[in-house]
Amino acid sequence: MSSHEERYDVPRVTSTIDFDHLMPREPYYVQSLERGLAVIRAFDAHHRQLTLSDVARTCGLTRAAARRFLLTLTDLGYVRTDGRLFSLAPRVLDLGYSFLSSLSLPEVAEPHLERLVARVHESSSLSVLDGDDVVYVARVPTSRIMRVAINVGTRFPAYATSMGRVLLAALPESELDAYLGKVKLEPLTDRTIASPGELRAEIARVREQGHALVDQELEEGLRALAAPIRDRNGVAAGAVNVSIHAARATVEEIRERLLPPLLEAAAAIEADLRIGSR
Amino acid sequence: MSSHEERYDVPRVTSTIDFDHLMPREPYYVQSLERGLAVIRAFDAHHRQLTLSDVARTCGLTRAAARRFLLTLTDLGYVRTDGRLFSLAPRVLDLGYSFLSSLSLPEVAEPHLERLVARVHESSSLSVLDGDDVVYVARVPTSRIMRVAINVGTRFPAYATSMGRVLLAALPESELDAYLGKVKLEPLTDRTIASPGELRAEIARVREQGHALVDQELEEGLRALAAPIRDRNGVAAGAVNVSIHAARATVEEIRERLLPPLLEAAAAIEADLRIGSR
Repeated sequence: MSSHEERYDVPRVTSTIDFDHLMPREPYYVQSLERGLAVIRAFDAHHRQLTLSDVARTCGLTRAAARRFLLTLTDLGYVRTDGRLFSLAPRVLDLGYSFLSSLSLPEVAEPHLERLVARVHESSSLSVLDGDDVVYVARVPTSRIMRVAINVGTRFPAYATSMGRVLLAALPESELDAYLGKVKLEPLTDRTIASPGELRAEIARVREQGHALVDQELEEGLRALAAPIRDRNGVAAGAVNVSIHAARATVEEIRERLLPPLLEAAAAIEADLRIGSR
Repeated sequence: MSSHEERYDVPRVTSTIDFDHLMPREPYYVQSLERGLAVIRAFDAHHRQLTLSDVARTCGLTRAAARRFLLTLTDLGYVRTDGRLFSLAPRVLDLGYSFLSSLSLPEVAEPHLERLVARVHESSSLSVLDGDDVVYVARVPTSRIMRVAINVGTRFPAYATSMGRVLLAALPESELDAYLGKVKLEPLTDRTIASPGELRAEIARVREQGHALVDQELEEGLRALAAPIRDRNGVAAGAVNVSIHAARATVEEIRERLLPPLLEAAAAIEADLRIGSR
């Protein structure tokens, strides 16, 4: 190692807790990358501007280490500062954008989501499974004026959402067993499914019927209907849904009025995916 | 440095080119963070799956270094692999999401964009300035079915867009001079503004009239009209636009039909921002 390389290296003591001791890492592990990404994630709606001390505390870093990561991110254009307060810069979006542009599904699906929304006048979304969560990768809201805090990148626990249930239903049996064995079912509303046994039964029903309908289990007043998007190998690449205020349609009305156009949209996306992957 | 820390440290020889020699870095600089972020950005629409060698070549890393970054990102859930091919995982969206949720402007503006789109039946977007680019931070498409490849995170050169011009017009004179002194004006269409002098004159006009209208300078067939969003201190926090296919409205029709609702939407967003920041 040149002394030059060493100078620009990661801080010698970067943590107030010996994480390495708690969680042994592989020899390849680049801890400074983990820590730098953690610094980016320290910012959110409730922490739009952070001081160096805030970042050090939130990420479990020394002030010296937090300073190195923040200044490096500032040099790279991912963070802005007035000298005291730090905030994220729009360049951070490039990172998420790398993922979205690397994914063909949203691009293929979006025109179909727009067509579906124009037809049923309700919002439609596309999501993929990431661990125990569904993550939104496309969303077309209705022009109806309402405040919906769902965007691309939003995560919800899979068990409480219609898209999550169709994606869970598409898992290999062993993965579903593993999921059901460890899932913590939080009562998000008083209708949220309460036991792994009930969830397993509901997922079996979803698998059989080919769609999921969730009635106010994620949020009071919100119903949603979802169908899987299967790639040419039959693997569920994602799920598409339509969500609707409970006041606007009963469960029966949703199934009658929204299920046929939803299944048509899902089939159209699947057809385009097959063309795209040829 | 403990031998333990050293083992998990950044690779000793990580680059085929001696970047440090070319670009001297500050002592605080964490190069492995820069390199890890570059690995994330190596993936895009044309590079959805990459081998270790692809990543090494794209990022100017040795194979050993590329392997460390890819495996670390895989451990952290940002990258997936089948053992040979690597691709980004949805968790990468959390990074961009950190930025979006740390920004109050899109949240405040979105209901107004939706209302504007419902009223004028054309798409509306919100963007902020990042260096020489505008970056989209919110977008409400019309329900009209068309293929638009603009999403949150999309960047365009500021000089060729209506939102860019209102944001440039809001810069302090010294920053505008610096921008005009270095900007490279690419002829994106045969109408794109061609000289810094013309651009300066147009920006002066935009500043005076309080809005910008760009006629097919970014893309053939696309016209757009934008207005600034000023915070309580009078600083332009962003810009809102309406974009329209050239076949649907002349420049005069756009100014007549779309300017009043656009200015009303901008004023409503500004009013909400002031309430929000009290």
